[in-house]
Amino acid sequence: MSSEVYAARRARLRERCNAGGSAAALVTRPANVRYLAGASPQSAVLLLGERDDLLVCAGPPEDRPYDGRPDDALPVQVLHRPAGDPALAAADIARTRGAESLAVEEHHLTVARHRALASVASRLRLTDLGSAVEQLRVVKDEEEISCLRIGAEIADQALGELLESILVGRTERHLALELERRLVDHGADGPAFPTSVATGPNAGRRGHRPTDRRVEEGDFLSVCLGAAYRGYRCEIGRTFVIGTSPADWQIQLYDLVFTAQRAGREALAPGTVYREVDRAARQVLDAAGYTEGLPPLMGHGVGLEFDEDPQLAPTAMGKLDACVPVTVEPGVHLPGRGGVRIDDTLVVRPEADGGPELLTITTKELLAL
Amino acid sequence: MSSEVYAARRARLRERCNAGGSAAALVTRPANVRYLAGASPQSAVLLLGERDDLLVCAGPPEDRPYDGRPDDALPVQVLHRPAGDPALAAADIARTRGAESLAVEEHHLTVARHRALASVASRLRLTDLGSAVEQLRVVKDEEEISCLRIGAEIADQALGELLESILVGRTERHLALELERRLVDHGADGPAFPTSVATGPNAGRRGHRPTDRRVEEGDFLSVCLGAAYRGYRCEIGRTFVIGTSPADWQIQLYDLVFTAQRAGREALAPGTVYREVDRAARQVLDAAGYTEGLPPLMGHGVGLEFDEDPQLAPTAMGKLDACVPVTVEPGVHLPGRGGVRIDDTLVVRPEADGGPELLTITTKELLAL
Repeated sequence: MSSEVYAARRARLRERCNAGGSAAALVTRPANVRYLAGASPQSAVLLLGERDDLLVCAGPPEDRPYDGRPDDALPVQVLHRPAGDPALAAADIARTRGAESLAVEEHHLTVARHRALASVASRLRLTDLGSAVEQLRVVKDEEEISCLRIGAEIADQALGELLESILVGRTERHLALELERRLVDHGADGPAFPTSVATGPNAGRRGHRPTDRRVEEGDFLSVCLGAAYRGYRCEIGRTFVIGTSPADWQIQLYDLVFTAQRAGREALAPGTVYREVDRAARQVLDAAGYTEGLPPLMGHGVGLEFDEDPQLAPTAMGKLDACVPVTVEPGVHLPGRGGVRIDDTLVVRPEADGGPELLTITTKELLAL
Repeated sequence: MSSEVYAARRARLRERCNAGGSAAALVTRPANVRYLAGASPQSAVLLLGERDDLLVCAGPPEDRPYDGRPDDALPVQVLHRPAGDPALAAADIARTRGAESLAVEEHHLTVARHRALASVASRLRLTDLGSAVEQLRVVKDEEEISCLRIGAEIADQALGELLESILVGRTERHLALELERRLVDHGADGPAFPTSVATGPNAGRRGHRPTDRRVEEGDFLSVCLGAAYRGYRCEIGRTFVIGTSPADWQIQLYDLVFTAQRAGREALAPGTVYREVDRAARQVLDAAGYTEGLPPLMGHGVGLEFDEDPQLAPTAMGKLDACVPVTVEPGVHLPGRGGVRIDDTLVVRPEADGGPELLTITTKELLAL
């Protein structure tokens, strides 16, 4: 992205800070630093000043430090501090520039680090920046959405290739590693999050960590993966049946989760309250008697983090905007038997633009593999 | 490990808390929770009471929640809180049990979470547990060391197999993924940290993230990997030359780093000050004129985290104990040309027991592949 994009983001944040009474802000959360400065080298922090912004990095400059970009290609001025916490150096710089207060990310800084900041800059009043940067990040521009779209294509490809291979007898761990290799083959930075492959009684468990269990005839197989592409992280989840003919209970459970997921997708529109999307999907599962053990949310935002605002949860009060990418991912897991999860990444779009844009296009028919 | 081991660890921590004036403690850092409770399910926190300890988990109980162990196999009582932050629930329990103060991990809790804790339990005085658990974790028992030893064997095997394959023309990313697959093949939980493969001008860079650069004749190739085995994370790093005959500068640089690494290894003994180990390795590189751009430390502890106390750094004041596993990992990177890193995991042992125990036994001769 061009350096103007980053400068515009920082200008918007600066407006919010000024409105909050702080002329200077210190951004420490890595995804927020990356959003505003184009890169987040390890431990780097961003100091937002009245006019000048500064990325303060730990360690000496390197020849190829940030995702392939040298210092001078970053859309912000860079300073290296070979030793110590760059946040302390940044606070010191803010003080010498005459700032009276500094807004910090209290939801990211630890108590110990906050105390160190307060003592380094004793004449600097520390205020709370809150989740101002996270809020800016919710609505994406078309360049960000395009990164998510490419990531979704990569994930679809990796999943499609896996489905063409022989699955019975292979372990969850191996299938997960194979998927991650294919993501990289197709141009991903890497997996967006640890790939989850769940078979038999594990199938349908949210966030299941792959084990040495092998795929067997008659299993449900659920897979959840995503590609990181230029930092943007999409998510797709599908459930399959292994063998020639699914059992009746498998078909029924699959149809139910499919119906819930479709209801969630159809609820995505600018202006819809977050919890209404959750409710649309959840009530289908509730009505079928699966109230207990449902996941705490039916979807969430994706972007530079694979789980970010908004949360599509029963008590979430905000409203969807256009150009917000979210997952819709209901699931049911029956202890000892397994279950079903279906998970798409979509971008909220107005009706006039054709409604929600589906990024993860792998079929949601129940495939018997 | 038997539940007595975990109970003994918690008893030692309780002694420290009592000495510090707090009868109750709240452990939130995941590796610390795992060390004391045998598992650290997502977001779980450990409440240490005067007599009873309680692992408070987020979400409903699952059938296979913690590394394959059901709730009732955990060496501590478990409570599930389906909604909200388990730390808040734990503070509330401490208050109802009559605790007057609660020691918390201020180096792990964010300012926002600490404030929420303070407001939930307004009659509870929050004190700082500091890094009491991290300090307990420094010296390992033989069962922990045995997990590290198995992890090191796995990493040695994975690396050995890679060296037998054809390398020229393959990308850093693919070699890294291949190594990670082999770690899992040989029984690792997974990689201990993101595997680093660096070729040509990237070789020798600490923490290099694999790129699409392909291995070429005449390259240095440096590899850093580790296996996680039952949660314990070892580390091995080696540098090779691609092609039949290394250039003179490559041989000289390799010999230098090898000499520095040997000096660091030989400095490992109970009673040695941390910074002396750093100095032993660093001064070899310093004397050869490579002062600039050296890594900030020459080694660090390993265990449930792959980088933990002690830090073998220029200003680190503590002294090594027996049964402390550490890495020794000097390196030199020449911008634009590449470089060398050599990295072992060893356990500090007294002279009478044969001196430092080398866990990562892959040869450190300069191999031309």
